[in-house]
Amino acid sequence: MKNEITMRPIGVIRCGYTSTSQIPKGRGASHTEEGTIEILPELEEGLTDIEGFSHLFVIWMFDRSAEGYDLLTTPPGETRAHGLFATRSPRRPNPIGLTVVRLLGRDGSRLRVRGVDMLDGTPVLDIKPYLSGVAAEELKRGWLDEAGR
Amino acid sequence: MKNEITMRPIGVIRCGYTSTSQIPKGRGASHTEEGTIEILPELEEGLTDIEGFSHLFVIWMFDRSAEGYDLLTTPPGETRAHGLFATRSPRRPNPIGLTVVRLLGRDGSRLRVRGVDMLDGTPVLDIKPYLSGVAAEELKRGWLDEAGR
Repeated sequence: MKNEITMRPIGVIRCGYTSTSQIPKGRGASHTEEGTIEILPELEEGLTDIEGFSHLFVIWMFDRSAEGYDLLTTPPGETRAHGLFATRSPRRPNPIGLTVVRLLGRDGSRLRVRGVDMLDGTPVLDIKPYLSGVAAEELKRGWLDEAGR
Repeated sequence: MKNEITMRPIGVIRCGYTSTSQIPKGRGASHTEEGTIEILPELEEGLTDIEGFSHLFVIWMFDRSAEGYDLLTTPPGETRAHGLFATRSPRRPNPIGLTVVRLLGRDGSRLRVRGVDMLDGTPVLDIKPYLSGVAAEELKRGWLDEAGR
């Protein structure tokens, strides 16, 4: 098995969030903030036909979180700790973020999107088309669906 | 902006796929293969409470794809090329794979899952809980929804 891999950003997020305190978090948080994904100009051709998709997966780097991680972590607004892989904690063995955004439009190498929950300047590692979702009635969401906090 | 990041696997996929030719690809491909995600034993506590979630995002490494990438790529079964970020091509600037799996159960540091589309031995970089999907009626899927091939 390959033992490590080095990744480099393909672009950067531009949005109005300059501090994590501005980003809605916890149960019922709604992400409607708009922003721009600026892809490196030399990769622009890789965006060909992307404007036909309504939603994208954005894979990005938690570049300003404290280093290291705890295996048990208490999410914002919660009172009980959970395993970090059962949470979206930014402090993870590999500091990868994942966000589904709605694609509003493309201007060359810039994608205008809605639903950003990352800081201005966040490095982007990959973008993939969103092809299908799991229906709400099929989902179980563990501790998030439990009554109370 | 941070310029590069080195990632290390948190675990490995175990499944019956030993060659990419065995993995269903293209339009209408259905992923029902079962497999196991073996998380490193020292990270097992990070899986606490994960069994309450029905679906997980698995972020993994395309460790056996040819190096490099083309900005335009023709997906399996298609006749037209598209920008690589509008496809799920394994040859990408950062060789990151993303799969939604159904969680069948957990035995210690092993997660039994359905819906694998990676090769046996694939390194896993992160696991996140799947919290909500985009409804089918809200989705536009670009070239995938166009008539014909």
